[in-house]
Amino acid sequence: MNGKKGSSVRIDICLPSSAVPRETARKSGKGDGDEAIVIPLRKWMMEVWQFAREDTNRVIFSLKVGLACLLVSLLILLRAPYQVFGTNIIWSILTVAIMFEYTVGATFNRGFNRALGSILAGVFAVVVIQVAVSSGHIAEPYVIGLSIFLVGSITSFMKLWPSLVPYEYGFRVILFTYCLIIVSGYRMGNPIRIAMDRLYSIAIGAIVAVLVNVLIFPIWAGEQLHRELVGHFDSVADSLEECVKKYLTDDGSDHPEFSKTVMDDFQDEPAYRKCRSTLNSSAKLDSLANSAKWETPHGRFTQMFYPWAEYVKVGAVLRHCAYEVMALHGCLHSEIQAPYNLRYTFRTEILDATNQAAELLRSLAKDLSNMKHSLHTSLLKRVHASTERLQRSIDLHSYLLTLSHDVCDCPAKPPAKLSHVSSFNVTDADGMKAEAETYHETMKKQQRRLHSWPSREVDDFEEDMSGESIPRMRALESTAALSLATFTSLLIEFVARLDHLVEAADELAKLAKFKQEIAC
Amino acid sequence: MNGKKGSSVRIDICLPSSAVPRETARKSGKGDGDEAIVIPLRKWMMEVWQFAREDTNRVIFSLKVGLACLLVSLLILLRAPYQVFGTNIIWSILTVAIMFEYTVGATFNRGFNRALGSILAGVFAVVVIQVAVSSGHIAEPYVIGLSIFLVGSITSFMKLWPSLVPYEYGFRVILFTYCLIIVSGYRMGNPIRIAMDRLYSIAIGAIVAVLVNVLIFPIWAGEQLHRELVGHFDSVADSLEECVKKYLTDDGSDHPEFSKTVMDDFQDEPAYRKCRSTLNSSAKLDSLANSAKWETPHGRFTQMFYPWAEYVKVGAVLRHCAYEVMALHGCLHSEIQAPYNLRYTFRTEILDATNQAAELLRSLAKDLSNMKHSLHTSLLKRVHASTERLQRSIDLHSYLLTLSHDVCDCPAKPPAKLSHVSSFNVTDADGMKAEAETYHETMKKQQRRLHSWPSREVDDFEEDMSGESIPRMRALESTAALSLATFTSLLIEFVARLDHLVEAADELAKLAKFKQEIAC
Repeated sequence: MNGKKGSSVRIDICLPSSAVPRETARKSGKGDGDEAIVIPLRKWMMEVWQFAREDTNRVIFSLKVGLACLLVSLLILLRAPYQVFGTNIIWSILTVAIMFEYTVGATFNRGFNRALGSILAGVFAVVVIQVAVSSGHIAEPYVIGLSIFLVGSITSFMKLWPSLVPYEYGFRVILFTYCLIIVSGYRMGNPIRIAMDRLYSIAIGAIVAVLVNVLIFPIWAGEQLHRELVGHFDSVADSLEECVKKYLTDDGSDHPEFSKTVMDDFQDEPAYRKCRSTLNSSAKLDSLANSAKWETPHGRFTQMFYPWAEYVKVGAVLRHCAYEVMALHGCLHSEIQAPYNLRYTFRTEILDATNQAAELLRSLAKDLSNMKHSLHTSLLKRVHASTERLQRSIDLHSYLLTLSHDVCDCPAKPPAKLSHVSSFNVTDADGMKAEAETYHETMKKQQRRLHSWPSREVDDFEEDMSGESIPRMRALESTAALSLATFTSLLIEFVARLDHLVEAADELAKLAKFKQEIAC
Repeated sequence: MNGKKGSSVRIDICLPSSAVPRETARKSGKGDGDEAIVIPLRKWMMEVWQFAREDTNRVIFSLKVGLACLLVSLLILLRAPYQVFGTNIIWSILTVAIMFEYTVGATFNRGFNRALGSILAGVFAVVVIQVAVSSGHIAEPYVIGLSIFLVGSITSFMKLWPSLVPYEYGFRVILFTYCLIIVSGYRMGNPIRIAMDRLYSIAIGAIVAVLVNVLIFPIWAGEQLHRELVGHFDSVADSLEECVKKYLTDDGSDHPEFSKTVMDDFQDEPAYRKCRSTLNSSAKLDSLANSAKWETPHGRFTQMFYPWAEYVKVGAVLRHCAYEVMALHGCLHSEIQAPYNLRYTFRTEILDATNQAAELLRSLAKDLSNMKHSLHTSLLKRVHASTERLQRSIDLHSYLLTLSHDVCDCPAKPPAKLSHVSSFNVTDADGMKAEAETYHETMKKQQRRLHSWPSREVDDFEEDMSGESIPRMRALESTAALSLATFTSLLIEFVARLDHLVEAADELAKLAKFKQEIAC
């Protein structure tokens, strides 16, 4: 319980029992003065308080579960309902505990699973019991045993089937309800009566769970999904800006070693973490959309058959944009870096394109958040224009990228090792056919003869084969400048994908009938 | 049930009841001759058969669940045990149905949750009942009601806490066990007796579930995790090769539109799909490692405290390599493409580096699979050497990349639009300070004066602002050649990350005490 929050942080579990002494210490009063216990306790209380304040829905949900349990327990604690329903009412409690989920949609979904599972199991059990009874006294236990074996095997196999995985819980319900009814029926007689009693009490539990969930501060999966998607737009925009800004200001002096950072832990890049959560959002969006489908129109979502599936699609396209941000981020932390001066040269164009792209993303997020549908044509055109400017600039000044080892003033780095001259070594003699030779091919060969192939470098490698340590890849300084081309290409590709994102967002706005806005 | 397999395919659910007529139709014999029913049924049977054959563990698991249910039902179906245990034995059935998981580790984990949850709930219930009884006849139901409310709220709040999420099931168990014991105790008296009886029957169920799971064809989470990771290595190698091969052979004639393929559906790239599953493998590896921790030494994994967590770390590094493959794949399907001839020019070097990298990955996979620890130094060096050759080649022939709009013989594509000449337009007048001007900056400005800035292009955009359709980004042909630089940079970065992968794999081999091999 005294762990930090944050989904990616994994903390040792401290079982509730160990929290008890602290609780006691607190109750016995600070006056007793065991400061060493009081301070961690206060810290822990602050953490819990922060966690609750961050999303008050968490507290609301907890109180609702408590209330639902209390209500259903009243059926037994009060004399009148107990005399009507009897001990079977404990099934209501079980149903509430198992069925009560965080969102309304998920509760409906689970309730549906439970109801359908119970009914199917009940019907099947009654049929099998009739068959068993009519097959005679001796065969009866064999028929029942065989049926239990078959139901167990078949439901377990079915729940592994990919398209039935979301209904896993339903199959579990079928299995244990079937076993319970048929076994109680065999020993206690009158299986139909037992099945019906149990269905009644399950229905009572389900009704209490649904009513409490829907009527008291309902937490709608649709609303959560909507907010989640808006948040993902913002976090992609943030991490794009953060990444580009860092690329342009970073002079390479304080690069953390990649091996230390490969475990996804970039402390100084808060937006990057959010972007990573966007990459892993697929399952969450899916499950929220799946729950939202079960919800009735509510709040801002008044339309019947609201297109929740479109949210998942927009999320998928957004994720494709986020992959490019990840690649940009990879470029930023790559071991092969363009010199700072060169990066600074294209600073204005890169920043301009980035800011325009981030603005477009934020505008999409804002519109989605306000459920408005406005045309993003002019914003999109501005992004395209700035990207085109970037392309032209790179194009005009591409000689800077490739000749950098001649003219570059890279500080504190050795010059490219192109001066090694050794014998010409045809490394690609294996398969290149003469008829396939293009203009480039010829150019390349001519050039090679001029510079000659530096094969000795390669041989260097082979010498210390017995070395224990893992060799590190060496990057050629001379190609380092090309990494700027990579960075800008990725940025341009990101912008190209924005087109599809705008398209997907438009499609969503159309299907969800967002309010049309003429002005942009 | 008649859905196709494949985890990314979502199929409409056809409830089991609808399968019954088909089943009957089959049993009544094909002789009756309703061919229209028989053919889909046969197809469906084939699919189920394929699904079962793909992984026989699925069938084994299903039969084991059936067996466990049958065994525990025997306790009631046979007279002798029933007379000993009574009707409480139905809790054994519930326990088996809820506790029986696919792998041994997951079953242990769930069993631990259930056991600890039941015990905590039982102890707490007994304490509260004593308090309630001693507080007098009138206060008793209030004390019980309040305690139910508190237990419901607190367990629900705790299970939302990030580090306690994996124990969600345990909290559910606490909640319903507590409610059941305290409520039955209130109405039926002697809560300690009830709690003990229930614990016995839960223990019987748990023992049966564990014994069946462990003794009959056990499915170990550790083994699954091991195989899963090996498979991910292979799929990254496959998709790298597939992607590069496609890049080098694709002449751009049959590009599917990006919008059609953005939804991750590249039919002709089977390895890419596998690579995507690697990207999304984080949750699966985590949960398998989590389950594996609960398992005793088994099969090939004879060491106590086997380092399952290292598998997750290697998986994370591998995922970082896979991100680069995704970026390469993005390059392949980018709208801005280097001309085919140019790609062909560097074919040998790119293929060589790719093959070496894939070979290294496969060698790592093989060693992991055989639990051997061999030095990959020479393989790694060979990869580095071929990557360095690629870098040098790009470096030597970089003029091909940037001058391509002058010399390139790209077929069927318009020439670059650099001939537009208009007035000089200082687009970056906003913030570039004079003192920051570098050599590059000066060069760039000079160059700009020569070529002049094509600002008219940008103005073109603004004119048709009222247009309804979403504008598509235009790529400059002249920068298209730079996309080759991007592709190779990404490939080089991929190789750079392989170093860290080898390191992580070595660490795993050391901790897991894989058999040392001297030869490579």
